[in-house]
Amino acid sequence: MISFANDYLEGAHEKVLQRLMETNMEQEYGYGSDSFTKQAIENIKELIECQNASVRFLVGGTQTNQIVIDALLDKFEGVLAPETGHINVREAGAIEYSGHKVLTLPSINGKITATSVKEYLDLFNADETKEHMVSPGMVYISYPTEYGTLYTYDELEALSNVCQENGLPLFIDGARLGYGLVSEESEVTIQDIARFSDVFYIGGTKIGALCGEAVVFTKNNEPKHFVSIVKQHGALLAKGRLLGVQFLELFTDNLYFDISRHAVAMSLKIKQAFLDKGYELFFDSPTNQQFIIMTNEQVEKLKQHVSFAMWERYDDNHMVVRFATSWGTLEKNVDELITYI
Amino acid sequence: MISFANDYLEGAHEKVLQRLMETNMEQEYGYGSDSFTKQAIENIKELIECQNASVRFLVGGTQTNQIVIDALLDKFEGVLAPETGHINVREAGAIEYSGHKVLTLPSINGKITATSVKEYLDLFNADETKEHMVSPGMVYISYPTEYGTLYTYDELEALSNVCQENGLPLFIDGARLGYGLVSEESEVTIQDIARFSDVFYIGGTKIGALCGEAVVFTKNNEPKHFVSIVKQHGALLAKGRLLGVQFLELFTDNLYFDISRHAVAMSLKIKQAFLDKGYELFFDSPTNQQFIIMTNEQVEKLKQHVSFAMWERYDDNHMVVRFATSWGTLEKNVDELITYI
Amino acid sequence: MISFANDYLEGAHEKVLQRLMETNMEQEYGYGSDSFTKQAIENIKELIECQNASVRFLVGGTQTNQIVIDALLDKFEGVLAPETGHINVREAGAIEYSGHKVLTLPSINGKITATSVKEYLDLFNADETKEHMVSPGMVYISYPTEYGTLYTYDELEALSNVCQENGLPLFIDGARLGYGLVSEESEVTIQDIARFSDVFYIGGTKIGALCGEAVVFTKNNEPKHFVSIVKQHGALLAKGRLLGVQFLELFTDNLYFDISRHAVAMSLKIKQAFLDKGYELFFDSPTNQQFIIMTNEQVEKLKQHVSFAMWERYDDNHMVVRFATSWGTLEKNVDELITYI
Amino acid sequence: MISFANDYLEGAHEKVLQRLMETNMEQEYGYGSDSFTKQAIENIKELIECQNASVRFLVGGTQTNQIVIDALLDKFEGVLAPETGHINVREAGAIEYSGHKVLTLPSINGKITATSVKEYLDLFNADETKEHMVSPGMVYISYPTEYGTLYTYDELEALSNVCQENGLPLFIDGARLGYGLVSEESEVTIQDIARFSDVFYIGGTKIGALCGEAVVFTKNNEPKHFVSIVKQHGALLAKGRLLGVQFLELFTDNLYFDISRHAVAMSLKIKQAFLDKGYELFFDSPTNQQFIIMTNEQVEKLKQHVSFAMWERYDDNHMVVRFATSWGTLEKNVDELITYI
Repeated sequence: MISFANDYLEGAHEKVLQRLMETNMEQEYGYGSDSFTKQAIENIKELIECQNASVRFLVGGTQTNQIVIDALLDKFEGVLAPETGHINVREAGAIEYSGHKVLTLPSINGKITATSVKEYLDLFNADETKEHMVSPGMVYISYPTEYGTLYTYDELEALSNVCQENGLPLFIDGARLGYGLVSEESEVTIQDIARFSDVFYIGGTKIGALCGEAVVFTKNNEPKHFVSIVKQHGALLAKGRLLGVQFLELFTDNLYFDISRHAVAMSLKIKQAFLDKGYELFFDSPTNQQFIIMTNEQVEKLKQHVSFAMWERYDDNHMVVRFATSWGTLEKNVDELITYI
Repeated sequence: MISFANDYLEGAHEKVLQRLMETNMEQEYGYGSDSFTKQAIENIKELIECQNASVRFLVGGTQTNQIVIDALLDKFEGVLAPETGHINVREAGAIEYSGHKVLTLPSINGKITATSVKEYLDLFNADETKEHMVSPGMVYISYPTEYGTLYTYDELEALSNVCQENGLPLFIDGARLGYGLVSEESEVTIQDIARFSDVFYIGGTKIGALCGEAVVFTKNNEPKHFVSIVKQHGALLAKGRLLGVQFLELFTDNLYFDISRHAVAMSLKIKQAFLDKGYELFFDSPTNQQFIIMTNEQVEKLKQHVSFAMWERYDDNHMVVRFATSWGTLEKNVDELITYI
Repeated sequence: MISFANDYLEGAHEKVLQRLMETNMEQEYGYGSDSFTKQAIENIKELIECQNASVRFLVGGTQTNQIVIDALLDKFEGVLAPETGHINVREAGAIEYSGHKVLTLPSINGKITATSVKEYLDLFNADETKEHMVSPGMVYISYPTEYGTLYTYDELEALSNVCQENGLPLFIDGARLGYGLVSEESEVTIQDIARFSDVFYIGGTKIGALCGEAVVFTKNNEPKHFVSIVKQHGALLAKGRLLGVQFLELFTDNLYFDISRHAVAMSLKIKQAFLDKGYELFFDSPTNQQFIIMTNEQVEKLKQHVSFAMWERYDDNHMVVRFATSWGTLEKNVDELITYI
Repeated sequence: MISFANDYLEGAHEKVLQRLMETNMEQEYGYGSDSFTKQAIENIKELIECQNASVRFLVGGTQTNQIVIDALLDKFEGVLAPETGHINVREAGAIEYSGHKVLTLPSINGKITATSVKEYLDLFNADETKEHMVSPGMVYISYPTEYGTLYTYDELEALSNVCQENGLPLFIDGARLGYGLVSEESEVTIQDIARFSDVFYIGGTKIGALCGEAVVFTKNNEPKHFVSIVKQHGALLAKGRLLGVQFLELFTDNLYFDISRHAVAMSLKIKQAFLDKGYELFFDSPTNQQFIIMTNEQVEKLKQHVSFAMWERYDDNHMVVRFATSWGTLEKNVDELITYI
């Protein structure tokens, strides 16, 4: 059965696998000191136009969120995040496991505003007993969001400003970064992401790699002894080359963005098909995920042919369902899906 | 320069990479519910002759040690381990990070004895204020040890018995399991390992895989909600297939053991060459690591041609150095090494 | 200046101090094995009519919340609580520090409903990827709430039932338990509290003691090695007699409830005085805290004579302020306060 | 039965209790901002001749060790300590619970040397893979030690120097500080303790108070947001006055040292009596604890009249036992003890 259940259904882009094959028997140092990792870091720093950046490769998204947040926060601090943020709802308490509270802000279409951050800080700072509360120590957002939506340039700039003014690092979860940046509705570039954030990551797991996320500290602000912290979290890969080689290929000849474009094109084709048939969107997403409102009957019928994700109940008769595309989505599968709707 | 610096210098065995290529575009569920993972689990359960076992794949060794120990211990418990155990010295405090104390026992050639475990427990239980001490909650050993040495059948059986009699799970770190089991001096089989332990893991990172360790709970004792615990530690791989496919290939047609045999043969060839030249061994290792005592001058000279690990200072004029082989070691490199010594 | 700023402004009730004096030089074992502690435990068990209960004394409220929740939850579980619950907002992240997420439910007047607990559980259990979420492992409420309000008998019974049906321990924070139970509007007795909850505590710090909270596990459910857990949290008092003696006196001849009654009488006198002068209540509290809406000018004026707590901004021209009474509140101070309003 | 089982057998010195009585009904702010606490802090700062010090009061010793160490260490760091140190053996894993490894050094009579610290650091710094090890982040010692022994002036100065040269804070556990300082064999004063250490604490629980330890950060180095950290650990006392009043009395008119002198005099009287009868000492302690070697028969006989602590087995026929005195020890009890030996 064809599947649009998520964006990690296949292995890796063939060029990535090919590069793993070609480099396989070269003897290299471990733990990220291999030559592929070094070259991949250079390529990324050049791309984002930020020579002071430091880049580290980790294996997965939750791991990255946990380690970055734990490394940046002081022990008594928490992280401000949208109530719908991945760290708040879908990471099995990984942030709390590392001792930190997720301080939630109301989210609209998966996004928070600079205003809501400011109001939170004002209330906190005005509190006479704020020593009894968790200090907000950084801000976490996703680009694109968990709902496929995008912050505008102005929204990101305002968030960046409020963070900078209050000494809070801004952390952008880019598990699907490519799918956001290549959208025609994206108002920001990866250089903007680097400029606006204090740390962000470039998701590989969902975009072309077998696994891997590239963490970028953009302001000469890598936490000291970061390798020890990664090791302490059990996240230091012995064969760091596995990550280095993959990101090296993804960031050679624009592969990362080219394959992201394919995913978004497939996603928009699906969206248009649903709109043409009169379906309603739950979010109007310009990226690689589409959230569609369907009757329960439509869901049951489509499930016989296609795999997709149940998102949430809309009302007694309707469900919100999600169709995700990726670098690996075959257009013939999209066409087949469209025949069923 | 040729290298014997460690046992994770190359990528993966070519058959493993080949299998990743062949299965690459098949759409599969994530998080370990893919068909490759399922088949790999079946193969391992059949091999170890333990149908009640549960098998889970994780990415790396420190991660595995941290998660298994944290999942099995109660909050107020610690883990008994050799003072030279990997978890005590080389994991950047990963066990303590998860809240547990490593309770050390004296180690001889990297090994502890059932007697020392028993004595520890007797002293603990006799203490009037033992509620003020960390309760020993499990025992951790490595097979082979960090020094390449092996427990005898009787030693393992005695450890297993003392653990069982005292209600302590016995956890065997098998980061180099294959290199131990295929040694001609090994008195135990993988079935024995499964029988004697409550949980052990089959190391893939050092034996043929890009990454991956297969954790086996042998006594119908997988901690409940283990997947949530793995996720909470940031260790749940989205594309679980990456681990499943690799272990499926390693445990098809005996590949895991065949490639382990090659590594040990290369290691013994190196050992014999050093002995022939009159060098002394620091440990007499029958597995894939050789620890040689060299004069400082010999070290300096050899370093010009070969990469290897400085282990520790032996005395003012001598060093202990380590040569590691692996599935990927080329015999021509071994021969070249021998020409230099 | 007279103060109604909180309910821990004075030391301890004179009878409590007297008992400390009288017993001072008796030699006793430490860590809670003294004879006073044993007798206090018996008195409490008799009072609550629950001979299977186990009682432990801890020093403070946040400490008690942290230890009880950490001891009862499995590592991957979180605690359901009102969004306004003390553990969620005023404990500096003590719950998260111990690795657990506070899962918030909407609160009305500081209370949650059995229905909201049930809905949370239903949504959680229906989620296909619930292994990626924090499992709700217990429910936390306060009696009286942080806003001085009380659950009705039916509300508590319904919460107790939904917890029992779903295997979730119900934990009642009784930092101000006496002030709730003696209220004329209280529909429950301490025996009901013991019956409806799986664990609760009887606050001493705010009711007559220098420090101390009596934790009661009511269902033969004290976590094993609880003393070790308390020690591990740094909370095991060497001179456990300090807590034992105080609770022994508080639970001799009904002292705890008698002094609670005084506090509530003083509180209601203050409330009536404000109502008589036409002030509006923010919450209609029948216990020892009163939340009054005042104009900013009224606040400024009153602050010159009386100390009280700024609670929150009501609107541009009004504040919510709090007046707390306790066992130690002097009626002449209440009368003086009334002259100013 | 008379008891020398430990040094927390009685309540508090009568003057301390008297002061609690006298101040009982004064209304004061909570959490350590009361006037007694402020005055106690001033008295201590004046005594130690260190106006830049900051002083905080906590409830107990393990709590203090956990909080100070957790607050001073970076997340990836551990604490160097004697293998016999209280934090390593008698705190139920409280340090590991807060995520930090105790890095042990060999101890002689409960003490470590500057040389052993230096050697540890040299080995650590020389290690090529030290990022995989726990970084030593501070040094913990006790004065007097758990065995009643004392560091000489030179030993302390050398430890202080090696710590300073390597950027490691030196933390002195002073749970029995008074009993050490008033010993005639003490070569250091409390001013020296303040000068040599970066942080130390003045034990109250064992010397005159119901509970309480005064933590002194001596080098303008109180960790930022220390109150939040204390709260997060569940250790912030609502009625901070309980600690403030007690330390105020202890540090008025030299009470702390006067009562310490009594304890040591009683201890030396016991020691002399044992020596006179031909018993051997296990440690030659000049402070308030005496460790005596007794035959098993002698132990059994004495146990019928006196309570004391079993320390450890000496050989098949002998035990090491401990007699502790305190501010509260009655000389008539000492005389009675002597009649039995």
